Amino acid sequence: MENNDYSHLKEEIISNKRIFDGHVIKVDHSRVKLPDGQTADREIVYHKGAVSLIAVHDGEMYFVRQYRVAPDDFLLEIPAGKIEVGEAPHETAVKELREEIGGIAGTLEEIQEFYVSPGFSNEYVYLYEAKDMTMETQALDDDEFLDIVKVRLEDLKKLLQEGAFRDSKTLIAVQHVIASYNL
Amino acid sequence: MENNDYSHLKEEIISNKRIFDGHVIKVDHSRVKLPDGQTADREIVYHKGAVSLIAVHDGEMYFVRQYRVAPDDFLLEIPAGKIEVGEAPHETAVKELREEIGGIAGTLEEIQEFYVSPGFSNEYVYLYEAKDMTMETQALDDDEFLDIVKVRLEDLKKLLQEGAFRDSKTLIAVQHVIASYNL
Repeated sequence: MENNDYSHLKEEIISNKRIFDGHVIKVDHSRVKLPDGQTADREIVYHKGAVSLIAVHDGEMYFVRQYRVAPDDFLLEIPAGKIEVGEAPHETAVKELREEIGGIAGTLEEIQEFYVSPGFSNEYVYLYEAKDMTMETQALDDDEFLDIVKVRLEDLKKLLQEGAFRDSKTLIAVQHVIASYNL
Repeated sequence: MENNDYSHLKEEIISNKRIFDGHVIKVDHSRVKLPDGQTADREIVYHKGAVSLIAVHDGEMYFVRQYRVAPDDFLLEIPAGKIEVGEAPHETAVKELREEIGGIAGTLEEIQEFYVSPGFSNEYVYLYEAKDMTMETQALDDDEFLDIVKVRLEDLKKLLQEGAFRDSKTLIAVQHVIASYNL
């Protein structure tokens, strides 16, 4: 479909100003040289990345309902969490599955990995599927507040069509489950 | 599956510091009161939102290959663009379809809308499908550099499984096309 030389599309950062150095994000205001030599401004958010999990047990898919202050909305999302410094994505996945829904996977299979919004951010999300899961009790961090919501597999397609899932990782996960379970 | 009273999950912003007021994003460092009365810091990126487009013509799905400076990567994405002030999402979609791939849709059907990364950002993306499309020439902005890449529908599933699509909106779109065309 195309050759693999993309150098005619490349931008080069020529100067950089660190605007914010937070716990979750770092923000740079950068100036780039475009392929034709013009310059342009870029606003860039650096993020350490996250994991998210498909968790199906006893014919039900596990979600969490939580409040998100950035969109000011209560969303129905798959379990997920930020990758901490020094953690491998697979370790974060094991931890978040246990904390958010009390799940312990026999194995974790990687399904996809993706940038959530490459136009301004490098946040990269690893999506795993928990296989052969056993359930224990939720073990949330003391600043986490969320409800576990279980959805029967046969209801997923209708909920997808109704717009019940309104964040990107959850839409990717639900579509994957519908396809792989032939729902 | 759950009742609709989520007030036990709500956080309230109690103070707010505007860190950055850019063209594309605004960044706040906020302090919130958690449901149990504790406080916590939140780093929030406000964004005006974007549209993205499923465009299929003559048995091929249209993508654009472009360099993204935030992840420092050349990605294969569906056509997309930021919503400008005063634009309705549908207007942005018509404009971006024409600019990026030269497409003119008979009708635009909305497929999904979603937050890309609600943990820190309110960016909201509208995904449309262009129906009954005719093709003219690409009409890029003078600071846009991207290649049109057409993929035959029967190759989509294999490319998806190989990890060829590495951003969230594109994965949602490709999964939708595979399901709706029974590929």
